[in-house]
Amino acid sequence: MNYRMITYILGWILIFEAIFMAVPAVTAICYGESAVWWFLATAAVCVGIGLMLTKIKKPENKKLYSREGFVIVSLSWIVLSVFGALPFFLSGEIPSFVDALFETVSGFTTTGASILGDVEKLSKSMLMWRSFTHWVGGMGVLVFIMAFVHLSGAQNMHIMKAESPGPSVSKLVPRVKTTALLLYSIYFVLTLAEFILLLAGGMTPFEALNTAFATAGTGGFGIYNTSIGGFSAFIQVVIIVFMLLFSVNFNSYYFIIKGKFKEALNTEVCVFFGIVAVSVLIITFNIMSTSGGFGNALLNSSFAVSSIISTTGFSTADFDLWPELSRTILVLLMFIGACAGSTGGGIKVSRIIILFKSLGRELLMMIHPKLVKKLKIDARPVDNETVRSVSVYLVAYVLLFTASLIIISFDNHDLITNFTAVAATVNNIGPGLEMVGPTANFAFFSGFSKIVLIFDMLAGRLELFPMLLLFTPSIWKK
Amino acid sequence: MNYRMITYILGWILIFEAIFMAVPAVTAICYGESAVWWFLATAAVCVGIGLMLTKIKKPENKKLYSREGFVIVSLSWIVLSVFGALPFFLSGEIPSFVDALFETVSGFTTTGASILGDVEKLSKSMLMWRSFTHWVGGMGVLVFIMAFVHLSGAQNMHIMKAESPGPSVSKLVPRVKTTALLLYSIYFVLTLAEFILLLAGGMTPFEALNTAFATAGTGGFGIYNTSIGGFSAFIQVVIIVFMLLFSVNFNSYYFIIKGKFKEALNTEVCVFFGIVAVSVLIITFNIMSTSGGFGNALLNSSFAVSSIISTTGFSTADFDLWPELSRTILVLLMFIGACAGSTGGGIKVSRIIILFKSLGRELLMMIHPKLVKKLKIDARPVDNETVRSVSVYLVAYVLLFTASLIIISFDNHDLITNFTAVAATVNNIGPGLEMVGPTANFAFFSGFSKIVLIFDMLAGRLELFPMLLLFTPSIWKK
Repeated sequence: MNYRMITYILGWILIFEAIFMAVPAVTAICYGESAVWWFLATAAVCVGIGLMLTKIKKPENKKLYSREGFVIVSLSWIVLSVFGALPFFLSGEIPSFVDALFETVSGFTTTGASILGDVEKLSKSMLMWRSFTHWVGGMGVLVFIMAFVHLSGAQNMHIMKAESPGPSVSKLVPRVKTTALLLYSIYFVLTLAEFILLLAGGMTPFEALNTAFATAGTGGFGIYNTSIGGFSAFIQVVIIVFMLLFSVNFNSYYFIIKGKFKEALNTEVCVFFGIVAVSVLIITFNIMSTSGGFGNALLNSSFAVSSIISTTGFSTADFDLWPELSRTILVLLMFIGACAGSTGGGIKVSRIIILFKSLGRELLMMIHPKLVKKLKIDARPVDNETVRSVSVYLVAYVLLFTASLIIISFDNHDLITNFTAVAATVNNIGPGLEMVGPTANFAFFSGFSKIVLIFDMLAGRLELFPMLLLFTPSIWKK
Repeated sequence: MNYRMITYILGWILIFEAIFMAVPAVTAICYGESAVWWFLATAAVCVGIGLMLTKIKKPENKKLYSREGFVIVSLSWIVLSVFGALPFFLSGEIPSFVDALFETVSGFTTTGASILGDVEKLSKSMLMWRSFTHWVGGMGVLVFIMAFVHLSGAQNMHIMKAESPGPSVSKLVPRVKTTALLLYSIYFVLTLAEFILLLAGGMTPFEALNTAFATAGTGGFGIYNTSIGGFSAFIQVVIIVFMLLFSVNFNSYYFIIKGKFKEALNTEVCVFFGIVAVSVLIITFNIMSTSGGFGNALLNSSFAVSSIISTTGFSTADFDLWPELSRTILVLLMFIGACAGSTGGGIKVSRIIILFKSLGRELLMMIHPKLVKKLKIDARPVDNETVRSVSVYLVAYVLLFTASLIIISFDNHDLITNFTAVAATVNNIGPGLEMVGPTANFAFFSGFSKIVLIFDMLAGRLELFPMLLLFTPSIWKK
C-alpha cells in the first residue's frame, strides 16, 4: 500500500475543499453574514494541512494499484465530509457534530436527506454551502481534481473507476485528465442552462443558483421548508426536465456533441425513459381523483417520479399520502435509480438491464445446457467479469441493506420508516415514507443510527465496494 | 420435448393423488362425515384419467432431458393442486374455486397461508386433507412417486433436481430410486416420533396426526383458530424441536445413521442453528417486559423464530404486536429460510453462505486482481457454475418479488401487508405482518392477487426456475 501517495492526494482534497468554500464565503459577504469567518477559518485549516501533505515532500513512488484507488476514494470522501461539516458545527447553526456530519455527507453524496426541521432558519451562506456540496459531489470530487491537477501517471484510471457510478467506466478520450475536463464542461453548461431558465421563471439569483446546484448533483436539498412546492408550474417543469437530464449517462451528451445520435440513444437511456413514462402514467391515473384533475395529477406524478428515479429528492406534493400503488411504485423506483455515468444514484438502470439479461441467459441455458451464449447490450458483448461483478454488487447491496435495517430498527420506529430511510440513504435520494416522508426529516434517529445512515450514504454514492473494502483487513496488509 | 413422457408422468401423479385421498376418506368414515363421497368421487376421476394416461400406450421414447425435468415438475404440481382442490370446492366447504385452489397450493407447497377465517368450521376430513397435503408436498411428490415407480432410466435425476430444494442436489446412493426411498424413510420415522411425543403430551390422535403432518412438511396449517396457542408448553417445545429438525438437510440424518457425525454437522447446519440462537436471544430480551418474564418470552420467541425460519408458520403469540426490532428480525428470517435438502422453504442457508463467500472472494480479488481463488464450503470446492446459478437465483427472486408486490398493491392494502404477504408466500411460510399477521388470513385479497400469490407459492416451493421456465417461449420449441 502506497501510504505516501494516499496522504498526498488527501492533501489535494483539503486544498480543493478550501477553494470550494469560496462559494459560501462570497455568499456570506454579499448578505453581510458573520458566517464568513467560519468558512475562512475552516478553509485556512484545510489549506494548512493540505499544503503540509502535498508540498513538504512529494511522493517518489507514484504507482497506484486498484486497491490504492479504492482507499483513496473512500478516505477522500470521509475527509471531505468531516472538514465540510465544520462550518455548520462551529457556527452553531447545527449544534451537534453528528448532525452536521450527516448534513454534509448527505450533501456531498447528493442524497439530500436532512436533519433540519426548519431549513429556512439557516443563514444564506450555509444554505449555499449545502447546495454547493451537491454540485461538487454529483460529478465526483476526485474527477474534479483530476481535471486540474496531474496526480499520477496512467494509473489514475483506478481512482476514476472507484469514484464513477456504473458497472463499467470508459474514458471518452484516451487521457483521464481530458475526460475529466470534458465531463465537467458538460456538467457546467447544463447547470448554467438550468440556472438561466430558473431565472427566466422568476426565481431570484440566490434561489436559482441553489436549485440549479441541487438539481445538477441530483441532490435535493431545498432552501424552503416546502422544497419546490411553492414555485410555479413553469419552474417545476424546468426542474423535472433537468432532473431527468442529469440522470442520463454523460457519455450520451458527448456522443451528441460528436453527432453520433444513435450511440447517444442507447438501450440504457431508452429503458430509463420507458420506466419513467410507465410510472408517470400509472401514478397519474392512481392519484387523479384526489389531485384535482388530470393536469395537476400529471404534474405532481411527473415531479415525484423524476425526483425519485433521478434520486434527487425534491418534492412538491406529499407522496406519502398517495394510494399504496403509487407509494409502492415510488419505493421501487428508489432502488432502480438513474443511468450509469450520471450524477444520480441507486442501483443504476444498466445494472438492472444486465441482471435481467443474465437471468434470461440462465433460463435459456437450463433449457439447452450445451448452449454458449454471450451477453450483449447495444450489440456489444458484456464480458463475464462485468456480469459477475454486477451480481456480486447485488449481493453486497442486499447484505448492507439488511444489516443497516436491523441496526436502525433498535430505535423502535416503524418498519416502513426504517426500510425507506435505508433505501433513501443508500440510494442517495433523500426522502422516504412515513416518518422520513417528504415533509419530514431524519432528526429523530439516534446518533448511532445516524452514523449507520451516514455510512450508507457514502457506500451508496461510491457504489459499495470502496467503503466495504475499508473494513477488509487484507487491504491494509503489505 | 418428449410430450408423451410428460403426460405419462402426469398420469402417475393423478393415480397417486387418488391414493393420497385415502387418508381423508378414512378420516371421513371414522367421523361419519358425508365428505367421504367427494373424496371418493375425486379419486375416481383421478384414477380414470391417470390410467388413461399411463396404461393405454406406454411411451416408447423414455428419454428425459433437463428441460423435460422442469416442465414435468411444474406441471405435476399444478395438476396435483387443481385436482386436490376439488373436494374443498365440490363439497361447498370452500365455495370459491380460487380460494380452494389457494388453500390446496398453500398445502402442497407447505406454505400454510389460509383464506379461512374460521378453520374450526371445516369438517375433520377436510382438515386432515389440508394437513396431509403438507406432508406430501414437504418431501416432494415426484420424489415419493420415484420411490415406488420406475419412471425412466438414469435421467430421472433431472426430475429430482428440479423438485428438491437447495443450490445443488446430491444422491445419497447411486440409484435415484433408493435415494428417494431412504429420504422418505427418514421422513416417516421423524414424523412418527413427533406423533408419539404429541400423544404423550396429551393431544388426541386426530390433533397429533394433523400437527405432525403439518410440522413435518414445515407447512403450518393449524386445526384451531388459535393455531398452537391453546396447547401446553410441553407440546410447544416438542413442536419447536421438530420444526427445527425438519429444517435440517436430510443428508445429515443419513450421515448420522452411517456414523459420520462430522459430516452431519456441516457448515450449513452450524450457521442455521447459530442464526436461530442469536435471533431467539435478541427477541427474548426485546419482548421480555411485555411477555410476563424471561421464561415465557424465551418460549414465545423460540416458537416464533423456529416457526418462521423453518418456514412452518405455526403461531402461539401474536408476533405482529411485538416491538419493531423483533418484527424486523422475523421478516428477515422469512427470507433466509431453512437448510437445503430439508422440507423448509426460503432462500436457504446454503445459498446465503455461498452469497457471503462469493462477496468475500470478490472483495479479495479487488485488492489482489491477479488472485485466483476457489470458493470452498466444508473444505470442498464449490464450482463456479453453482456460484453463478445462486447469484442468478437471487436475481430471479428479487424480480419475482418486485413484480408480485406491484401487482398485489393494486388492491390498495398497506405496504407492510403486501410486502409480507409476498414474503410469506414466496418463502412458503404462511403468516406475515399487519393484515396477514398470525391471527389474520388471506381472504381479503382480490381473486387476481390470490392467483399471483398462488403462483408465488408454487415458484417458491419449486425454487423459481421450473415455474419461470413455463413462461419461456423457447422451452416449448422442438
